[in-house]
Amino acid sequence: MVKKLLHIIKVGGNIIDDESRLKGFLEHFALLPGHKILVHGGGKVATQLARDLQVPQQMVEGRRITDKDTLKIVTMVYAGLINKQVVASLQSLGTNAIGLCGADAGVILAHRRTHPVIDYGFVGDVDEIGTDRIDGLLRQGLSLVVAPITHDGKGQLLNTNADTIAQEIARAMSGIYHTVLVYSFEKAGVLLDADDNESVIPRIDPALYRELRESGKIFAGMIPKLDNAFQAIASGVGKVIIGQAENLPGLVSGSAGTTIMA
Amino acid sequence: MVKKLLHIIKVGGNIIDDESRLKGFLEHFALLPGHKILVHGGGKVATQLARDLQVPQQMVEGRRITDKDTLKIVTMVYAGLINKQVVASLQSLGTNAIGLCGADAGVILAHRRTHPVIDYGFVGDVDEIGTDRIDGLLRQGLSLVVAPITHDGKGQLLNTNADTIAQEIARAMSGIYHTVLVYSFEKAGVLLDADDNESVIPRIDPALYRELRESGKIFAGMIPKLDNAFQAIASGVGKVIIGQAENLPGLVSGSAGTTIMA
Repeated sequence: MVKKLLHIIKVGGNIIDDESRLKGFLEHFALLPGHKILVHGGGKVATQLARDLQVPQQMVEGRRITDKDTLKIVTMVYAGLINKQVVASLQSLGTNAIGLCGADAGVILAHRRTHPVIDYGFVGDVDEIGTDRIDGLLRQGLSLVVAPITHDGKGQLLNTNADTIAQEIARAMSGIYHTVLVYSFEKAGVLLDADDNESVIPRIDPALYRELRESGKIFAGMIPKLDNAFQAIASGVGKVIIGQAENLPGLVSGSAGTTIMA
Repeated sequence: MVKKLLHIIKVGGNIIDDESRLKGFLEHFALLPGHKILVHGGGKVATQLARDLQVPQQMVEGRRITDKDTLKIVTMVYAGLINKQVVASLQSLGTNAIGLCGADAGVILAHRRTHPVIDYGFVGDVDEIGTDRIDGLLRQGLSLVVAPITHDGKGQLLNTNADTIAQEIARAMSGIYHTVLVYSFEKAGVLLDADDNESVIPRIDPALYRELRESGKIFAGMIPKLDNAFQAIASGVGKVIIGQAENLPGLVSGSAGTTIMA
């Protein structure tokens, strides 16, 4: 049996923060045919709200230390404000979207991160994706909009990286669907020159990746994304594409962005 | 064909605000067999957050005037914080809950309230319940947890009264299910003496309601709830029960609270 196509699209915080870019992105997302899942990041709204509420924020290696008050803030902003605004926009564009965090329908089970030195607080690492539950929702013609909040199955919500959620969903759903994972953000793709959007590398296979890393030609910020992408491919994801959110149709058709290949 | 039973339970803000009472209530809700929908109010968290953010709140006849900033606050608190905490708790109790606002899966379409004198801001009155979409989720074995935020189908979120949402869902679902609507709150039921929880009136039919109203024996605050309840019965809802959230099993079995009858 031929597997049905499922697009998993991660959209970054910079797009979420910009009303007109988000609108354009969602218009493209709404037009994407077939089964689709949108995973959104948080953006600056949570940081701003924390500032307004005088809840000090601490970042360690790009990750937000999530104390009790910060967990409330990210739950409100990610799973409440951003998620519902995106869902309402997609509904207005004719896409029957449903917003979820990982606790909803038990779609993402996680555990609180343990670390020998750093206490990340209520940060969750993914244990299990509820593939049957996601499949059940997709089969009803729903497009899923996933906020980066998970749960531990014991009643505790957890703050989880959106890139990781997108990758874990794509991996897990690859048993049932032919999956295409798109990381969309503000850059045109993986660039040879971080400041030149024309320097996109159209395709990267493991050999080229090794070469690029060893020669130091890849912008350090891209390395976790690329590691994630190769992990995803190795676990059965059909294709991973990295590129500019504004150009979603080009990314999906393969005419833009960087395609990661096995 | 015998219609399947569907419980629609509204739980009030006073229970939501009290961690240990909420926990007890959710334990009972989790044990309720069959299809079920929980509609939750907002409680004082939104009011507190508005105070912390210095967003002035204005109430007119018990309704919150919802300006742009207040809409953000109620969306964050109702559809984010409260909804996801309730869902995570129910998941930990073995109930496969999914949290929704009215925009999710397009389950509640509303329009912005117009009023000749008062500008309620982003307050929505319900136009349509997506019965097929709700039925589709219930058939997957999901229990729905509904936050009192709706949308207008044009991308605008709206703040909507939770009692009304519970009633509208119960009415609309009565075509497909045998519906039981429970308004659970801090009182033991409809009381002859507002200060005496022992003075519960076990059953009220339209004749008794007229008599009680005319004799001024009913606490004024109960009248909108009772009007709602009789409207619901008149539109096909099987039964409406009003009573104490702590006693959900008693309410559902008919041994506690006030049952509204045609």
